[in-house]
Amino acid sequence: MKLLRHGERGSEKPGLLHEDGTIRDLSGIVPDIAGAVLGDEGLDAIRAVDPSGLPQVDAGTRLGACVGGTGKFICIGLNYADHAAESNLPVPPEPVIFMKATSAICGPNDPIIIPRGSEKTDWEVELAVIIGRHAKYVTEADALSYVAGYAVANDVSERAFQAERAGQWTKGKSCDNFGPLGPWLVTRDEVSDPQDLNMYCRVNGETMQNGSTRTMVYGVAHLVSYLSQFMSLHPGDVISTGTPPGVGLGMKPPRYLRSGEVVELGIQGLGDQRQVCVNDE
Amino acid sequence: MKLLRHGERGSEKPGLLHEDGTIRDLSGIVPDIAGAVLGDEGLDAIRAVDPSGLPQVDAGTRLGACVGGTGKFICIGLNYADHAAESNLPVPPEPVIFMKATSAICGPNDPIIIPRGSEKTDWEVELAVIIGRHAKYVTEADALSYVAGYAVANDVSERAFQAERAGQWTKGKSCDNFGPLGPWLVTRDEVSDPQDLNMYCRVNGETMQNGSTRTMVYGVAHLVSYLSQFMSLHPGDVISTGTPPGVGLGMKPPRYLRSGEVVELGIQGLGDQRQVCVNDE
Repeated sequence: MKLLRHGERGSEKPGLLHEDGTIRDLSGIVPDIAGAVLGDEGLDAIRAVDPSGLPQVDAGTRLGACVGGTGKFICIGLNYADHAAESNLPVPPEPVIFMKATSAICGPNDPIIIPRGSEKTDWEVELAVIIGRHAKYVTEADALSYVAGYAVANDVSERAFQAERAGQWTKGKSCDNFGPLGPWLVTRDEVSDPQDLNMYCRVNGETMQNGSTRTMVYGVAHLVSYLSQFMSLHPGDVISTGTPPGVGLGMKPPRYLRSGEVVELGIQGLGDQRQVCVNDE
Repeated sequence: MKLLRHGERGSEKPGLLHEDGTIRDLSGIVPDIAGAVLGDEGLDAIRAVDPSGLPQVDAGTRLGACVGGTGKFICIGLNYADHAAESNLPVPPEPVIFMKATSAICGPNDPIIIPRGSEKTDWEVELAVIIGRHAKYVTEADALSYVAGYAVANDVSERAFQAERAGQWTKGKSCDNFGPLGPWLVTRDEVSDPQDLNMYCRVNGETMQNGSTRTMVYGVAHLVSYLSQFMSLHPGDVISTGTPPGVGLGMKPPRYLRSGEVVELGIQGLGDQRQVCVNDE
């Protein structure tokens, strides 16, 4: 299933993408794409419904982030060997983790808001993993059973805030709208191999990133298991698994986003995002 | 007012500490100590109630974290000059920020859970600031008006996870129960100067930290303003403002927590916490 959230920001309703290409409203079935709905039982309850009978949503309706109630937005740093190289940093001996503020989460086609004072706002297409049930000390063999599904994320990053403003990456990763997520949460049964998905990012139509999850250093199962050794993962938590080469920081000279530019990105089978950059006035 | 949350974990109810020393239940007045309740209007609505008429809560009832619905748990690193020195790190030229997982938040007297594989679990008494209303690009002069109140936090930290396990501090800061918060949220009208509060932390009765918010490098107003330049702050967001000297990491030799040990900490006017350390079996 391709689950989504539609409507105005802060009051999104649950929905799904029907096989006929229309968006159908799930408000009568579940309260949100969040919490217990993300567990196997909750997803099965949606599967039992015939989408043809659900109300159709206007095609122009805004999409919100594909999951609600996210308690943690965990990111993995330098998780593609080629991206580490373009950043002039070594491949880490174990996963590097950091957090984006959950307040950065937005819809897949909402604008990228360039913060005041920003000169180095950058793009990062990433495979996001959405947790379906409580995970703590889980093995790598069991890890994928804790995953509700997958989505596209843009780990928008301000490189000066991240690296030139005193310690830790958080302040370059957490600006408002720095976390477009969606368009849909694709349930894990529809993703036969999360380590074999092509992904791309274009700026103004020019391809900047053209990679595959095949070249991830630490795969999804390892990451879920690894993180669960340090903290409980809860339904709705998001793990963004790192970006392949081709970010603006790695170009010679570096190339960053300006107001009016258009970022498009997507992952095979998980849909596409499109963002217009705007200055935060 | 001293606002609090009482009851079992995950189903805490709102309450307050009455001047007669009893805990009174606010369930009939507000849904939680969270969200819009933390704004000036919400707090005034509670102020208008005579606590003597509210139901009394059993004295032995568990206290939860003093605020609910926390979207971000932001921490400030190395924000006391003496603590930076004991950590062998320079005072940063601007605030160092990082995040704890919100899933680490727990009640003020809940156990400190020593994670599997941990050898270096440490304590940090900190002044926590709880945001009352949406703050973005606010000035230092206006910043305190966005604060709902203050609380005691223990920024429990696993030093090996934090510093010896590849990049970024998150994984040593986010373990379950690494964020005791409370006992109460003391509204800002009762804290005449957040930069003049004595604070302490004891382990098994021995004083380890004995400091004051007077020696903070970046004060509360500066931090709120500073953070709001990078991201929106929302009601219920928590900013833990750093710790004074005396953590286990800084001792010669370093000294860390073991199962059965007791940590007590508190801040002048904001109450006290007590935690027993247990291993995560």
